[in-house]
Amino acid sequence: MLTYNLMHTGSDPLYEYLCKSIKNDIIHGTLKPGDKLPSKRVFAENLGVSVITVENAYAQLIAQGYIYSIPKRGYYIADFGSIMTEKKQSFVKEMAPLTGGDTSYFADFSSNQTSSDLFPFTIWSKVVREILSDSRVQLMKNSPCGGISALRSSIAMFLKDFRGMTVQPEQIIIGAGTEYLYGLLIQLLGREQTYAVENPGYSRLEKIYRSFRVPCAWIPLDEGGVCVSNLEDAGVDIVHVTPSHQYPTGIVMPISRRYELLGWAAREEGRYIIEDDYDSELRLSGQPIPTLQSIDLSEKVIYLNTFTKTLCSTVRISYMILPPGLLSRFYENLSFYSCTVSNFEQYTLARFIEEGKFEIHVNRLRRHYRRKRDVLLEALQKSRLGDMVSISGEKAGLHFLMTVHTDLPESAVMERAKSRGIKLAALSGYYHGERPPENVYVMHYSSIDVDRANEIMKRLYKSCT
Amino acid sequence: MLTYNLMHTGSDPLYEYLCKSIKNDIIHGTLKPGDKLPSKRVFAENLGVSVITVENAYAQLIAQGYIYSIPKRGYYIADFGSIMTEKKQSFVKEMAPLTGGDTSYFADFSSNQTSSDLFPFTIWSKVVREILSDSRVQLMKNSPCGGISALRSSIAMFLKDFRGMTVQPEQIIIGAGTEYLYGLLIQLLGREQTYAVENPGYSRLEKIYRSFRVPCAWIPLDEGGVCVSNLEDAGVDIVHVTPSHQYPTGIVMPISRRYELLGWAAREEGRYIIEDDYDSELRLSGQPIPTLQSIDLSEKVIYLNTFTKTLCSTVRISYMILPPGLLSRFYENLSFYSCTVSNFEQYTLARFIEEGKFEIHVNRLRRHYRRKRDVLLEALQKSRLGDMVSISGEKAGLHFLMTVHTDLPESAVMERAKSRGIKLAALSGYYHGERPPENVYVMHYSSIDVDRANEIMKRLYKSCT
Repeated sequence: MLTYNLMHTGSDPLYEYLCKSIKNDIIHGTLKPGDKLPSKRVFAENLGVSVITVENAYAQLIAQGYIYSIPKRGYYIADFGSIMTEKKQSFVKEMAPLTGGDTSYFADFSSNQTSSDLFPFTIWSKVVREILSDSRVQLMKNSPCGGISALRSSIAMFLKDFRGMTVQPEQIIIGAGTEYLYGLLIQLLGREQTYAVENPGYSRLEKIYRSFRVPCAWIPLDEGGVCVSNLEDAGVDIVHVTPSHQYPTGIVMPISRRYELLGWAAREEGRYIIEDDYDSELRLSGQPIPTLQSIDLSEKVIYLNTFTKTLCSTVRISYMILPPGLLSRFYENLSFYSCTVSNFEQYTLARFIEEGKFEIHVNRLRRHYRRKRDVLLEALQKSRLGDMVSISGEKAGLHFLMTVHTDLPESAVMERAKSRGIKLAALSGYYHGERPPENVYVMHYSSIDVDRANEIMKRLYKSCT
Repeated sequence: MLTYNLMHTGSDPLYEYLCKSIKNDIIHGTLKPGDKLPSKRVFAENLGVSVITVENAYAQLIAQGYIYSIPKRGYYIADFGSIMTEKKQSFVKEMAPLTGGDTSYFADFSSNQTSSDLFPFTIWSKVVREILSDSRVQLMKNSPCGGISALRSSIAMFLKDFRGMTVQPEQIIIGAGTEYLYGLLIQLLGREQTYAVENPGYSRLEKIYRSFRVPCAWIPLDEGGVCVSNLEDAGVDIVHVTPSHQYPTGIVMPISRRYELLGWAAREEGRYIIEDDYDSELRLSGQPIPTLQSIDLSEKVIYLNTFTKTLCSTVRISYMILPPGLLSRFYENLSFYSCTVSNFEQYTLARFIEEGKFEIHVNRLRRHYRRKRDVLLEALQKSRLGDMVSISGEKAGLHFLMTVHTDLPESAVMERAKSRGIKLAALSGYYHGERPPENVYVMHYSSIDVDRANEIMKRLYKSCT
């Protein structure tokens, strides 16, 4: 029978001392998991203390998780402690990478990481400080599910000035990244619909649909973007398009195709167009074409845009604009969700836009990227590479297409470039099922150091010949 | 036939002038949506200019969205402009509320809004400033899908110190709120499983499952929380529990029930327990019981927690801890998702925890809420209400249960309280299907002004008699 000497308990009350003694035996393994403890009555008798003392000690041990009780059976030593620590440290670390991006290349054309130099740190920090000092009460007030009013109004204002769009702030739903908003849209539109994405296209999008287990078709493009007849053939209900600047081909969807697409959506109930305007602010040359959203009279367009391209990829703020019919459905079914962007960032961004700082920043970005693109393309044209490539889709966004006319197979070009420190992204990697073109590369140049432009072209030339 | 005088074009090139003239007619309604424009050749002949001039003008009008072309048919005036503006302003505003919470009550016991006075603004602002000035490069680097390393490590450290849990940082997945993490979990665990939530319980949770169209059962509780036999009867695969402090009843799940539950999960493949430890840091009295996560040897527990209770509800940072088997599945299937919390907030919170500021803050919160609870309960006991109510679940979190012994029906009590400026939340509102107890109220006191305690009790007494 378990016994303890309760003559020298020091300043501890009896029950406390008893509790510590048992705990000590558990920790040192004298009492093992599953061992049964004496009943309160028997133990009290044996120790020469009151039943209450044992009861108190047991209660404390239960509360601390060292023992547990099974009604009508008794008290047992719990099964945890040092073994847990060992077990949990036996992890395979490599399956859980903790870093993002790869900076080991001389030039990485596969990354769209934005440069930290371009983020307006000084102004942003100033706005953050202001918000933290003058908006404390608002910062603590729960945001409506669609986002704080100030941010939605400032986005509506910006869209009017910059994009000629007329949008009510209530139509704008703020979320932590476009991927999150897709999840909301699937919940809103239903899992029974057939979704479609562009082929070639942004493969992460198809992964999202797959992850939500909704049917998703790849729709081949012609020179104007997604073809309506292909949508009809595939029985599509909801199509995702990037009309301002198709990713990755750079196709700008002509206005006639836009009307055709709207016509397709209007023909059947339940059809919708998701217009992803992901980098429209970074149009570098040419006139803008109105968004589908602004010429949509049938309430069939869901417009999506993000600040991850114009601010930085690590600020997770995107938004969607719902047409009235879907908006009421959203408020009915999904308004129980909290907004996923913290108030701190919502208020900061709202003021940043309101005070015109965002527009200044976007204009600065465009100048920067235009120069970057020009330097790269000039270096390319002047280099020996110039004669063997053709360029397209260079008017907008942060990438262009480079078609290399060479007899080398694509895999060889990529391998050779890689061995020279140049990481390329082949357009073929964006195709699904369809036979992709060979030796066309999607050149993301946002993270390229253009001081290296001439050397990059030399290395690329060597890789292609 | 449409014609323009091209003799006085000013400094504009001919095509530019022609373009402006047509645009002017569209804006003033001389040319109407759907009107057909002359063919390029005919128009050129008529105006006495080259076909190229008309072609350039048309191309620019197309790019600007004023006209569109239909292949082999011709050019048409586009259907947008002023009508869009009118249409979009005809919105029903009331369906889209832009404000959160209700401050019009004398005391609102239904709200768990945290007070802005409690947020550690000074220290938080200091950390924000530091991060903005010394971590610029890291701030711009894409976060791994599970969150930045520093935050995950600091959470692991905090859980070890504060909760006695041994967790590898790689097991921790950061997300913008618990609701978002639920969405990820459903994608991870699959839609074919039967999920279960506690009854009474947090109804938002069931809404999430419903919104994702996954089967979800309500499981009745006994005095120890969720009953294993009920789980077996309902054929449950994945159960959501709040063992540290059941919401809303306040039940602390005894260790014996915890072992039973772990045994249930271990018996069949595909069974999991989601342990939502949402306010465990705010335990006000009593000893903590070890989490299910720390006594789980079968890798069956997914632990969830949030900073929305301990920092403020408008900072959207939560995390989950995945057992090794699920972790590898997560990295395989869902690591394409970007982390939904911005780097700014991740780095700020990481430093806030690392430097011990979070622990100091939590201790301060506990003192504050303990005092608040004590003042309220003392005022209640001293008031005439004291004799007609009983209190339970007051040891943890920011709410307790108040059972009112009265002959008045619940709806009358609530109505009478409301007319006196007191908003009550009935426990019955958290029940689903089951026959709920009458006149039990879930008293969320975090936003109550305790200087009003005596007056609140007076008004409550009047409402109950």
